[in-house]
Amino acid sequence: MTHTQHKKTIKENSRNDDEDPSQIAAMRIIVPLQEVVQGRGGLVLGSIVPCALFYFLQLYLKRNRHPSSPSPPPASSSSDKLHESSTSIPRTLSRSLLSQKTPSGPAPVSSRASNVISKVAGGDSVSIVGYKRWVNDPYHECQNPDGVMQLCLAENHLSLDLVRDWLAQNLEKSLLDEEKVDLGIGGLVTYQRFDGLMDLKIAVAGFMSQVMKGSVSFNPSQIILTSGASSAIEILSFCLGDPGNAFMVPSPYYPGYDKNVKWRSGIELIPVPCRSTDKFNISIAALERAYNQAKNRGVKIRALLLSNPSNPVGNILTREMIYDLLDFATEKNIHLIFDEVFAGSTHGHKEFVSISEVLDEVGLDRSRVHIIYGLSKDLCLPGFRVGVIYSFNENVLAAAVKFARFSSVSVPTQRLLVSMLSDKKFTSEFLETNRMRLRKMYTSVVVGLKKLGVDCYESNGGFYCWVDMSKFLRSYSEKGETEMWDKLLNLAKINVMPGSSCHCIEPGWFRLCFTTLTDKDVPVLLERIRRVIESH
Amino acid sequence: MTHTQHKKTIKENSRNDDEDPSQIAAMRIIVPLQEVVQGRGGLVLGSIVPCALFYFLQLYLKRNRHPSSPSPPPASSSSDKLHESSTSIPRTLSRSLLSQKTPSGPAPVSSRASNVISKVAGGDSVSIVGYKRWVNDPYHECQNPDGVMQLCLAENHLSLDLVRDWLAQNLEKSLLDEEKVDLGIGGLVTYQRFDGLMDLKIAVAGFMSQVMKGSVSFNPSQIILTSGASSAIEILSFCLGDPGNAFMVPSPYYPGYDKNVKWRSGIELIPVPCRSTDKFNISIAALERAYNQAKNRGVKIRALLLSNPSNPVGNILTREMIYDLLDFATEKNIHLIFDEVFAGSTHGHKEFVSISEVLDEVGLDRSRVHIIYGLSKDLCLPGFRVGVIYSFNENVLAAAVKFARFSSVSVPTQRLLVSMLSDKKFTSEFLETNRMRLRKMYTSVVVGLKKLGVDCYESNGGFYCWVDMSKFLRSYSEKGETEMWDKLLNLAKINVMPGSSCHCIEPGWFRLCFTTLTDKDVPVLLERIRRVIESH
Repeated sequence: MTHTQHKKTIKENSRNDDEDPSQIAAMRIIVPLQEVVQGRGGLVLGSIVPCALFYFLQLYLKRNRHPSSPSPPPASSSSDKLHESSTSIPRTLSRSLLSQKTPSGPAPVSSRASNVISKVAGGDSVSIVGYKRWVNDPYHECQNPDGVMQLCLAENHLSLDLVRDWLAQNLEKSLLDEEKVDLGIGGLVTYQRFDGLMDLKIAVAGFMSQVMKGSVSFNPSQIILTSGASSAIEILSFCLGDPGNAFMVPSPYYPGYDKNVKWRSGIELIPVPCRSTDKFNISIAALERAYNQAKNRGVKIRALLLSNPSNPVGNILTREMIYDLLDFATEKNIHLIFDEVFAGSTHGHKEFVSISEVLDEVGLDRSRVHIIYGLSKDLCLPGFRVGVIYSFNENVLAAAVKFARFSSVSVPTQRLLVSMLSDKKFTSEFLETNRMRLRKMYTSVVVGLKKLGVDCYESNGGFYCWVDMSKFLRSYSEKGETEMWDKLLNLAKINVMPGSSCHCIEPGWFRLCFTTLTDKDVPVLLERIRRVIESH
Repeated sequence: MTHTQHKKTIKENSRNDDEDPSQIAAMRIIVPLQEVVQGRGGLVLGSIVPCALFYFLQLYLKRNRHPSSPSPPPASSSSDKLHESSTSIPRTLSRSLLSQKTPSGPAPVSSRASNVISKVAGGDSVSIVGYKRWVNDPYHECQNPDGVMQLCLAENHLSLDLVRDWLAQNLEKSLLDEEKVDLGIGGLVTYQRFDGLMDLKIAVAGFMSQVMKGSVSFNPSQIILTSGASSAIEILSFCLGDPGNAFMVPSPYYPGYDKNVKWRSGIELIPVPCRSTDKFNISIAALERAYNQAKNRGVKIRALLLSNPSNPVGNILTREMIYDLLDFATEKNIHLIFDEVFAGSTHGHKEFVSISEVLDEVGLDRSRVHIIYGLSKDLCLPGFRVGVIYSFNENVLAAAVKFARFSSVSVPTQRLLVSMLSDKKFTSEFLETNRMRLRKMYTSVVVGLKKLGVDCYESNGGFYCWVDMSKFLRSYSEKGETEMWDKLLNLAKINVMPGSSCHCIEPGWFRLCFTTLTDKDVPVLLERIRRVIESH
């Protein structure tokens, strides 16, 4: 560690030297002089040189202290440029009160903002291209049978009917029953705790326990509620790292992590590649390698972020692997973030094990463990924007409570959810029915694809088929993959996510969300894919 | 500007020199040598010195390149300390798979997190102390007539009945009417645009126009909806400034700005004091002074943030002052943020003028102007968490759309509000009735206080009386003010906000929120204040 730090210091300083023009200039003067004196140093030179030398030395030290080089450009210089080029409208000050001083150009935006905008300006990402195609031409069985099928957006429509039925029966009494809602209208519309109503925390803790099939209980006071799991991850990032720090994340990974972790908190994400030959399982050796590489670059790793069940692959961490990860994190003294938003959406034969269960067994320091949860996936309610931070670290909780002011859940939604999640009969039936429907639809798509000669990774949870189309690529490369993605979108009119968007290092994998399909859609989908394969 | 930049560069560099131990060491060797050579430079010395000199020079350059000084401590060192001291529980690794490597101590949290926590650990702020007192012993006319009156929380209870009546009639059909809500249940619970439904943006634009009494119309596509005005301000901060930049804000100001601007975006807030002798109006001279002081410190000002109607004072910017501010911002090339969350809660004789009206008149570059709005104040719905960024800057809008993913409003709440805000009869009656009730309650409190010999600043908008109790202070100082605040809380059981919390530089001012009072509460309040005054 000290060695690495030292190496980093060297690296940084040599870079600084290289970049400082005043130091370079001084060297240009002194080095030839050194030659003259050391090589042919006679009496005359011996007397003159010290004076000349000190003249230059003083010059050098002076310049070194007051370099004539310009100060480094401000962080937002790129945004200034962006602004100058885009919106420099001549200004007419139509009013005498407004002084006639030369307008100084549009006020610049921050470099954070321009980074986000420049990504947009640099052309839409494949997911945005696909999304736009779908918005303009959405598939509908009867009304638009030739439209684009949306298999990219991670929504579960399979059990929306259950939610609708519950709402139809319970909406009004959940929100306007003055006996239930404390203080009448005040309890519905006035300020409440930014990190969530205690009633809802209790209900969420109960639901999480139900999702884990009762194997573990959750403490409501370790819960922070946020407007969606994205803000839960962002808040955790703000709590665990500072700008320039990094989180490791096994890849392929959910592309939203790039936004949630990097955009505003300034933390780097370091992908740790998993391979098809390892069934996309994480290996401690790969983690170790990535950790050491970062360390050698002088980058401080603060956490390991992983999804379990994994998005996009759909695999589930074994108990043994969780122990290994705990061991690794303890040794490196880093945090562990387990994104378990699909915990209740398992549909395979392997049993899902939550980190919370493992922690219940072993008596080790839990303060490095944080769970991300939410109701978007397991309860089909992404529009409700309810995310959960469940942390064992009191400092993280203390800070997250404060940061929750920027991501509060609307109180009417919270009241509605207190009601819904407290209805244990509904939630247990929902979880069971939903798992069954997930299994059925997943199997139906995977078996259908198999018949076409297309293999899927055997997933155990989540909304995706992780489809291997590598053998159908014209060239085994990212280019080949993009070509295939393009064909799927434009020929077959299927919007899926290419593996490269998930930072998968092997080309030819695609994430296909099966939970937006109906039974009738499946043959349509398979027929469309058949056409693409045959055209290859 | 160039001059200041230069001065800054000098300052930074001389500081760097001072702090670099390797450079100091080199100077200690070279300076005495210089004396020897220049003073008594003989033949022998003339021959030996160049060699010695270059030895030291090389040593100096070498050290300068590879300084032996330690690299600067990581940003989170304070958090490490905090952690070590607070939660270093001995770890028992109960399972053989977990290696027996020495535990490295709890993983540190970020310095951002520890900053927020340390503020908490440093003792509760007066607002938290007061809030806790109220929570534990809330005043109620019948049930707890000796309890604490909450006049610190900025809520309007005066018109909650109107909201309740509307909800009772319209809740169910707003949310579950399949004809109204596109796509049935899907339109209520699935993913929607993170920056708000276009339907709601249209409704909000209409409401804002109504609030401005039709004097101006708003473009829905310039609207970003966020979970509360706090996140609107935070998102704007992320868009306009980078860490180390600063916003100026006339003081006294709403204490929430400190959290919204500084906590996560790392932007500094520079208060620009307004004085009672100027009726707490902003002066351009004071802005100019603060701007130049910041510039001399090398701090880049990115924006001027102000509330209009002002929180806490309740004054309203004149049209002339708005022109002056536009002029100032144009000259300095900075952004202008107008927080107009109380635009519809005016109750005085002076006419409120929105920046949007002024911009409609003058044809100047609007890209530096951003408006903050929300439904918490003007529609008595703080629990709904709906904030608005209304910007004239397309780059800010493009970035804010992206950042809105962390602060989305729940879709059921959005659907409810589409319905409520589209009900023009309701909104116009609400605005009118609410203004009338605000005026009545404000007058009732101010007149009552006047009779006790307590003066208030003449407010024109907002929920507050800005009360001058300076003549009752034992000592004219912050200490005297805190003493009075303590007396109000503990003797009179009134929780108000002391001016110092709002960065008011004159002691003895208090922000008293009158909108949580009922008619029957007013005499109780006045009697309690009378007791405090008489005890002094």
